[in-house]
Amino acid sequence: MDPIDIITTKRDGGELSPEQIDWIIGAYANGDDTTPRVADEQMAALAMAILWRGMTRAELSGWTAAMLRSGKRLDFTGLERPTVDKHSTGGVGDAITVALTPTVVACGAAVPQLSGRGLGHTGGTLDKLESVPGWRSDLSPTEMRRVLEDVGGVVCAPGPELAPADRRLYALRDATATVDSLPLIASSVMSKKLAEGTGALVLDVKVGSGAFMPDTGSARELAQTMVDLGADHGVPTRALLTAMDTPLGYRVGNALEVAEAVEVLAGGGPADMVELTVTLGREMLAAAGMDGPAARDPAAALADGSAMDTWRRMVRAQGGDPMAPLPEARETTRILVPESGELTRLDARAVGEAARRLGAGRSTKEDSVSPGAGITLHAKPGDDVRAGSPLATLHADDPARFGPASEALAGAYEVGGKRRTFPLVVGKLG
Amino acid sequence: MDPIDIITTKRDGGELSPEQIDWIIGAYANGDDTTPRVADEQMAALAMAILWRGMTRAELSGWTAAMLRSGKRLDFTGLERPTVDKHSTGGVGDAITVALTPTVVACGAAVPQLSGRGLGHTGGTLDKLESVPGWRSDLSPTEMRRVLEDVGGVVCAPGPELAPADRRLYALRDATATVDSLPLIASSVMSKKLAEGTGALVLDVKVGSGAFMPDTGSARELAQTMVDLGADHGVPTRALLTAMDTPLGYRVGNALEVAEAVEVLAGGGPADMVELTVTLGREMLAAAGMDGPAARDPAAALADGSAMDTWRRMVRAQGGDPMAPLPEARETTRILVPESGELTRLDARAVGEAARRLGAGRSTKEDSVSPGAGITLHAKPGDDVRAGSPLATLHADDPARFGPASEALAGAYEVGGKRRTFPLVVGKLG
Repeated sequence: MDPIDIITTKRDGGELSPEQIDWIIGAYANGDDTTPRVADEQMAALAMAILWRGMTRAELSGWTAAMLRSGKRLDFTGLERPTVDKHSTGGVGDAITVALTPTVVACGAAVPQLSGRGLGHTGGTLDKLESVPGWRSDLSPTEMRRVLEDVGGVVCAPGPELAPADRRLYALRDATATVDSLPLIASSVMSKKLAEGTGALVLDVKVGSGAFMPDTGSARELAQTMVDLGADHGVPTRALLTAMDTPLGYRVGNALEVAEAVEVLAGGGPADMVELTVTLGREMLAAAGMDGPAARDPAAALADGSAMDTWRRMVRAQGGDPMAPLPEARETTRILVPESGELTRLDARAVGEAARRLGAGRSTKEDSVSPGAGITLHAKPGDDVRAGSPLATLHADDPARFGPASEALAGAYEVGGKRRTFPLVVGKLG
Repeated sequence: MDPIDIITTKRDGGELSPEQIDWIIGAYANGDDTTPRVADEQMAALAMAILWRGMTRAELSGWTAAMLRSGKRLDFTGLERPTVDKHSTGGVGDAITVALTPTVVACGAAVPQLSGRGLGHTGGTLDKLESVPGWRSDLSPTEMRRVLEDVGGVVCAPGPELAPADRRLYALRDATATVDSLPLIASSVMSKKLAEGTGALVLDVKVGSGAFMPDTGSARELAQTMVDLGADHGVPTRALLTAMDTPLGYRVGNALEVAEAVEVLAGGGPADMVELTVTLGREMLAAAGMDGPAARDPAAALADGSAMDTWRRMVRAQGGDPMAPLPEARETTRILVPESGELTRLDARAVGEAARRLGAGRSTKEDSVSPGAGITLHAKPGDDVRAGSPLATLHADDPARFGPASEALAGAYEVGGKRRTFPLVVGKLG
């Protein structure tokens, strides 16, 4: 096998053979001085050629399988409960995992969830949960299994033994402007999710300005591609397309979002977060085959306190104190509404970027986040606002961050414009 | 400046700014731990994006200028004679430089020629001249200038100080299947030729199976692009499109081709080589402004012995012995014609590949070549052949090479097929 032949085939629009795919992923992930080795520059050229030419379903399935084979695949088939997980393509104010995982566990499923950190305008579940005092994400596979057996749900960072080819390839794509390739996104997500050993999977694919794939067509294609990949690997997979034109809930930032998710777990919380938690929860239970007549409903688990109880057990099992106060930023300031009328637009990406500038997110993977930083919104699109009333409160440890954050918000909202009716759940696949 | 922004711009079909181009070439060629640095994988992704999206004339001109600025530019403006050089895109049996350079020097121009080595099915002028006993290519810039002043012509390897960005980028493209990009080919050729300090330039762009760009349309586009780049940099540049569907002359291989070029210098030689030498020579003299009424003609220089005298002076100036016998391969064998009729096809690429397998060329840049190896053809397309008569003699040091070389020739020729009339000079630009 020759990496130049493989790059040339894809560059010229051809289809890679299963053997070529196995070889190049293996040589890239595991090659060293004594075994075949594919250089970073060769993989970068191939990634750009894939971004250009795409992949067939057979190529993509083989590519994902090869990434999966580059490491270990966890096995939870011995658990008493069926396993099911959710993956979100990333949004703004999206602490759904925090509310959803305990809710689904309270309904009887086991949720082995490997999560990530925030980058750019989007947040990450691990950053959010780390704002809970004492909570830690770095569990070993043994600890992960024990928490899953004891409590039914676990949220942690993937270990280096899971899909190491994806880890290496993702860092390379990040440095070479080859992230935005649909097949590479799909195989990256699915290789990690398949490696974590879940028995079923629900994908929350975001659509709108704050989403990775802003337009519905691309988001639907990404969703279908990942649903197919799940099926190809024997993991029943469903997808929802959900709105990310405006932030979910009213809070954006790590501790701020956890507090709002805990409100949902307490039976309250913003309507859009409750709707998405219940909808995704039902899909997860159905994907796990737990939608028969005796099934528990996520709405009931939120109402009867069982989801909240599970949340507290999950936090304690990972070293956290669910009753401890969440961190708060040292400084706040307000953004006021300039005119009266209906708030018709509040752009998710701009709000996410403002939160990042306040310290809630990262520019580069090496940055650390401020747990208390972020934004509290006082109105959402569809609400009537009065001139001079607060639109948002900004939270930061350093008041020097308020200026750049306000700049990110300028032009991000509109009063009295054309009303848009974008449903929360845009579509369903799988 | 951020390499990811630059890659993204090109990936999405945008135009790079002059500042972006200057920055990325400079950072790639000269970056180290203390200055901005563009990684090989980033340049590989950019090269693939350029292969995909192309470059505008402004981008390409800026790219070439940046590569030129990455190193020194030689300056021969103080010479008594006008300087002019020729570049060929590479062919099979193409020892034209060996005959052409002394011929043009004999007509009064100075020729500072930086040449390369063979790779794959094409040969390289330095490999050919190194078959002359004693001749050496590794002249310093000072030696190069001295030979040019004393004799009027010099053929040598480019030093590391000329267009180092091109050197690094070419090696990267070779490893990442990004060689076949028209703008990257054009800028690579032209940055080297402009760095060598020639006052005018003639390009011999090959067309046909043995050429880098087999079809006429692509070859013409490449030629026009290079002619434009020369004009953009103040170097009058012309191009000929010439046939490379069948080898030039009757011999393919290093010493074999030198011997044939010396026949041309002696006033004889194959008609196609003589025609191409004279045609290119006239273009070079015209490009150098030496086509007035008092100008000498290349055909006269071949006929009156002055080209041969110049050849001998040039060889001696670089340490060679023009009267010493050329090396010969230890073994020969013959390929016989299977049927009688007109030889209608003899494929240049296949003959080049067969010569490489005999030891005349290289698979990788690290291979060495056998000076005596190669092929003598006994017929060319248009000639009548008899069944059982020799079509070609193969020359190799090791008879084990005859089998693979014969395989490369199987199917490479046709007797009694459709006659093709492909003129030697297909087109002219500039």
